[in-house]
Amino acid sequence: MKNTIGHSVTLTLFGESHGTKIGAVLDGLAPGMDVDLDFINKQLLLRHPVKGISTNRMEQDKLEIVSGAINGKTTGTPLTILIENADTRSGDYNILQEVARPSHADFTANEKYHGFQDTRGGGHFSGRITAPIVASGAILIDALAKKGIKIGTHIKMCRNVYDRDFEDYNKDIGRLNDRVFAVLDDKVEEKMRDEIVKAKQNGDSVGGILETVIMGLPTGVGEPWFDTLEGELAHAFFSIPAVKGVEFGAGFAMCGKYGSEVNDELYAENGHIFTKTNNSGGINGGISNGMPIIIKTAVKPTATIFKAQDTVNFIKKENTKLIPKGRHDPCIVNRARVVADSMAAIVIADMLALRFGTDYLSGGDEE
Amino acid sequence: MKNTIGHSVTLTLFGESHGTKIGAVLDGLAPGMDVDLDFINKQLLLRHPVKGISTNRMEQDKLEIVSGAINGKTTGTPLTILIENADTRSGDYNILQEVARPSHADFTANEKYHGFQDTRGGGHFSGRITAPIVASGAILIDALAKKGIKIGTHIKMCRNVYDRDFEDYNKDIGRLNDRVFAVLDDKVEEKMRDEIVKAKQNGDSVGGILETVIMGLPTGVGEPWFDTLEGELAHAFFSIPAVKGVEFGAGFAMCGKYGSEVNDELYAENGHIFTKTNNSGGINGGISNGMPIIIKTAVKPTATIFKAQDTVNFIKKENTKLIPKGRHDPCIVNRARVVADSMAAIVIADMLALRFGTDYLSGGDEE
Amino acid sequence: MKNTIGHSVTLTLFGESHGTKIGAVLDGLAPGMDVDLDFINKQLLLRHPVKGISTNRMEQDKLEIVSGAINGKTTGTPLTILIENADTRSGDYNILQEVARPSHADFTANEKYHGFQDTRGGGHFSGRITAPIVASGAILIDALAKKGIKIGTHIKMCRNVYDRDFEDYNKDIGRLNDRVFAVLDDKVEEKMRDEIVKAKQNGDSVGGILETVIMGLPTGVGEPWFDTLEGELAHAFFSIPAVKGVEFGAGFAMCGKYGSEVNDELYAENGHIFTKTNNSGGINGGISNGMPIIIKTAVKPTATIFKAQDTVNFIKKENTKLIPKGRHDPCIVNRARVVADSMAAIVIADMLALRFGTDYLSGGDEE
Amino acid sequence: MKNTIGHSVTLTLFGESHGTKIGAVLDGLAPGMDVDLDFINKQLLLRHPVKGISTNRMEQDKLEIVSGAINGKTTGTPLTILIENADTRSGDYNILQEVARPSHADFTANEKYHGFQDTRGGGHFSGRITAPIVASGAILIDALAKKGIKIGTHIKMCRNVYDRDFEDYNKDIGRLNDRVFAVLDDKVEEKMRDEIVKAKQNGDSVGGILETVIMGLPTGVGEPWFDTLEGELAHAFFSIPAVKGVEFGAGFAMCGKYGSEVNDELYAENGHIFTKTNNSGGINGGISNGMPIIIKTAVKPTATIFKAQDTVNFIKKENTKLIPKGRHDPCIVNRARVVADSMAAIVIADMLALRFGTDYLSGGDEE
Repeated sequence: MKNTIGHSVTLTLFGESHGTKIGAVLDGLAPGMDVDLDFINKQLLLRHPVKGISTNRMEQDKLEIVSGAINGKTTGTPLTILIENADTRSGDYNILQEVARPSHADFTANEKYHGFQDTRGGGHFSGRITAPIVASGAILIDALAKKGIKIGTHIKMCRNVYDRDFEDYNKDIGRLNDRVFAVLDDKVEEKMRDEIVKAKQNGDSVGGILETVIMGLPTGVGEPWFDTLEGELAHAFFSIPAVKGVEFGAGFAMCGKYGSEVNDELYAENGHIFTKTNNSGGINGGISNGMPIIIKTAVKPTATIFKAQDTVNFIKKENTKLIPKGRHDPCIVNRARVVADSMAAIVIADMLALRFGTDYLSGGDEE
Repeated sequence: MKNTIGHSVTLTLFGESHGTKIGAVLDGLAPGMDVDLDFINKQLLLRHPVKGISTNRMEQDKLEIVSGAINGKTTGTPLTILIENADTRSGDYNILQEVARPSHADFTANEKYHGFQDTRGGGHFSGRITAPIVASGAILIDALAKKGIKIGTHIKMCRNVYDRDFEDYNKDIGRLNDRVFAVLDDKVEEKMRDEIVKAKQNGDSVGGILETVIMGLPTGVGEPWFDTLEGELAHAFFSIPAVKGVEFGAGFAMCGKYGSEVNDELYAENGHIFTKTNNSGGINGGISNGMPIIIKTAVKPTATIFKAQDTVNFIKKENTKLIPKGRHDPCIVNRARVVADSMAAIVIADMLALRFGTDYLSGGDEE
Repeated sequence: MKNTIGHSVTLTLFGESHGTKIGAVLDGLAPGMDVDLDFINKQLLLRHPVKGISTNRMEQDKLEIVSGAINGKTTGTPLTILIENADTRSGDYNILQEVARPSHADFTANEKYHGFQDTRGGGHFSGRITAPIVASGAILIDALAKKGIKIGTHIKMCRNVYDRDFEDYNKDIGRLNDRVFAVLDDKVEEKMRDEIVKAKQNGDSVGGILETVIMGLPTGVGEPWFDTLEGELAHAFFSIPAVKGVEFGAGFAMCGKYGSEVNDELYAENGHIFTKTNNSGGINGGISNGMPIIIKTAVKPTATIFKAQDTVNFIKKENTKLIPKGRHDPCIVNRARVVADSMAAIVIADMLALRFGTDYLSGGDEE
Repeated sequence: MKNTIGHSVTLTLFGESHGTKIGAVLDGLAPGMDVDLDFINKQLLLRHPVKGISTNRMEQDKLEIVSGAINGKTTGTPLTILIENADTRSGDYNILQEVARPSHADFTANEKYHGFQDTRGGGHFSGRITAPIVASGAILIDALAKKGIKIGTHIKMCRNVYDRDFEDYNKDIGRLNDRVFAVLDDKVEEKMRDEIVKAKQNGDSVGGILETVIMGLPTGVGEPWFDTLEGELAHAFFSIPAVKGVEFGAGFAMCGKYGSEVNDELYAENGHIFTKTNNSGGINGGISNGMPIIIKTAVKPTATIFKAQDTVNFIKKENTKLIPKGRHDPCIVNRARVVADSMAAIVIADMLALRFGTDYLSGGDEE
């Protein structure tokens, strides 16, 4: 369905970086879910540019919900979020109508849209479009939390600086959700920031790895073929700008090991079933097993850098060089983290609604 | 859509490991595509167990196409493939109705299906169910090749033995498609086989990494959000049994690098546009750029091993130990490779039909 | 999704009139639903040709369920039904590869499939393909009945002979489901049969109107826009061969009336809410209101008649005359009735699963 | 997909009658399609209340396109239309939170949304929500016209006053598209208006029948099962408020006839194929045959009337009487006509894009 994701709960995303408004339609919501504007705005703040290590474009993300909510609750009909674009400088982007930034979408957009694409600020391909994802995700993160399902993402690595591993998932998720720069070990934040600043000063960019955990997901969610829990989550996560890899549990690191080294042995305790290790990342046969869902996401360095690079004028089919203008992030890993949380929430909410019915996420404790 | 994948070209998969028949329905095919039974059977042979390093279950994969084809051509209506299960020994699996193999789907299937699942031979979760995927994929691989789009997968790594990299994609794909054990460097086959045999003798299992390349895909295929080319391909690839990671181009290896190190500079030559490197794996902004699509897939070691492991009786919620019976593969990497090719073909055929119309894949040269 | 219908419960239909097998895949079923072969066969008998007033093609509808069921219960994985074609005489249809029967699909099939369509016996367009719909519907009719939801269809009119109206829905549904020729008033059966025989003797055909009632559907099912209960049901019903109109409740008959004449006033009784009349056919704003769902379906006379008609050779684009060969029904209204029941069951099961979760239809009484 | 319709071209509809804005997201558009604001506004005027025979609520339908278009052309990314609600008087609707208007959605909305629905002005169930359908449809009507596909709807009947039949489809469509009150015979307008005024003066309402024609649709569009052209169109048309019946060609009128009376004989002329009559409404076997598509739609009298009617307080489950407040149409047939055109355009654009590819509708003459 192109710019729509989901089966029972669906998100339709729209907007261009320098259009008047961007937004999203969330459909299939249960009636009576909380729509907490403070929480939505708090989540949007986690996506805001961070002074010194982000773009200089400073959007206030002024938000309006024009349908699907009344008196702070969802109605159950399509909920539409609009966010204003206020701080745009479109002139910087004229060159991109014919010259491609290496590893960016300028050339492919032109191949797909035959020159009709909006190139200002990256148009529909801009990271800016993740703001409505975050606002939508906030409503679902809130609802899932009220059902005992918690989501958190940390920057596992940025420019080869590694955060510590999760220790106590619930406590760590709590910490992360209060931090703008989402690391578990306070001391690594400065090191990572230093790397980003260094890259920025060189007109360069850096990437990293995000690790997302979903706690409290009921067992039995996911399908054996095609709509596996991994397939659905990966499908969504590859929409996070610059993501080029997704793995679950121990992922690629298991490939060289023996089965006897990585199989997750099970045990029963107080009538519940657990695994001793969680190399499977909480999913077997595409279906949740009750352990934490663990997703690692590869975020490549931002494509737009302020160094001269060889490229082409794709209209004239001629070789040229480009130093882009405009305002860009030297690193998006820290800002992408709340997008990862949001994408996870959208997929999980959808799969729960499909499994347990459309009223499942309405307010209230676990049934 | 659960056990269905695709938008315009769709595959619906059905069957259980020890049912009488397994199969698939391919819908949305162009009329007049070749249905070459010899090629389908050749592809099925690439999935067959290999003596000494695979399961001892030897299925002939007797195939019947009961609808959607006549006189060796597709009609354009749903094409249904049936494959017989002949060599089944179901008694070995009774224990799995209450005791879970670690890292297998026994427990999650029970959570989802409440005890009604067919546990014989792994039921619907068995790797056996990939046979109709391969038969379906064969029809599409054939049609895509006639449009100049070629797909090949090699075993990049098995139990830490590495194959050489692709050199000449077209030539290498040709080589791979003729080999049962899909490595580019003849000398590594024996080393990999030795590792598999060693694991088997220990009642253990090994995994590996598959690398798939798609050549000749037109530019402009894929959507900017959600139905990105990466998202669609990853969604499908996570249905390949034991897959726990998918990356495109240089994937996770880019995360620690600078943008200036991994950006793919472009150049024009004879009116065509290329990139010097292909760290993006042929995809920018979710859309094909005309370079080879590169997908790497993490295949974990087979879950079923013949060593005593701690586990639970999930009906009684009691701890126990299990040494499984039945016939199982110590490694599925070599057999999964043609499943990867098939999954790639299914996704690509679907996205091309969506982009260029339902008749696009009918026989004949590139338009 | 072309030959697939549904969102949470889906039916994929395949097969050609003279292929070896026709069938369907039902996916999204709850695990543990009854699969009662006797009931399925009983339903298939309701679709069988009736001696003297139907085609002379006599198929036994030998049925095989090859996946998704074990020990008489659904597993929850895709359930595949195969039905053999045994009594085929394909030679009669060669002419249809170039000459069109008026008001049949011969010409449009050729326009869509460019000559690759299977024309034997009408191919994929044959009424024969409704047999797997009936078999699939039987499983859902059975499951719905166990949740208190009952479906019945009578021949409201055939060649201007009218059946009496429903009086006691529950009792009348019971009667209908035991009758091969589904009329409420015993006396009209003979009159209708006489009209069919008369048409047959003249090489002509007749049509009629089916009226379907769904009792016991919970309130609150359906969506306000697009996936309205009417929209979903009509979408399905227009797949019943020869259907050219669908109306709900009083339908077209309301168009000339005043609102005050046709509005359904409400009343409360014992804590339940009812309407005094049911001109809305149980649906307001696209959503069920708890009253019986009433659907009337226009079945035009069978297109294939044994009279010389003007037509074209669509390959040569020349005018010609045609008297078709083959075996055909002079009336399909009586046979279509169980197809209508089945289509209704498929749509309702899907919408209930979407609303209340995938386990809703598992065996057992109303929750 | 609930409030989304379509496969390749999709429309997502959102908004409540008294929310700040209503709107729609059109996705899957070809890049480079014209976005002609004058034409969109002209179409919206056709939906405007007509003085004396419509509601007194007078909305200016101030329109903003916030994404997916630039310089008067579609970009190919999601196109979002927002329309302001300005003239709202919500106090009139408080009673509807517990008392149901007969034959309206007040009760069913409460059953589905558990009291969280927005009842002001009918909320999401209001005819007001058709404004963005009309704006979206305008873009597609314009694009289809440029491909030679023309759509027109007339009021075939209103309160038993009948318009004349179509004579010259192309000429008649031209006439209709310039008329606010869409009848072919000028003389019937006054008679119909008189009936509406008479009903209004009595606090009553009237209905009617719309007849829509689609000219120039290529042959071969539609699927044999489920996604038949009839099924897709009917699915959409049942979203037009108050629609309770849809028929194609001669529809219900064929049911009592002989096949020999209603079959459409074919003939060839100048290398093209036509039918002598068009009882099939341009569709055989679910697929277009090149003749005009004819759809008749039953619009029941508006549910809201200003007469005391028996009803219930559905919260207290008590009988009561209601004379509704608010501003309402005594007849919506004349306003619904452009909604019918729009729905037809949406479905046809989607099916053409699915058949011929996503660029099919980009500006330019028939290929």
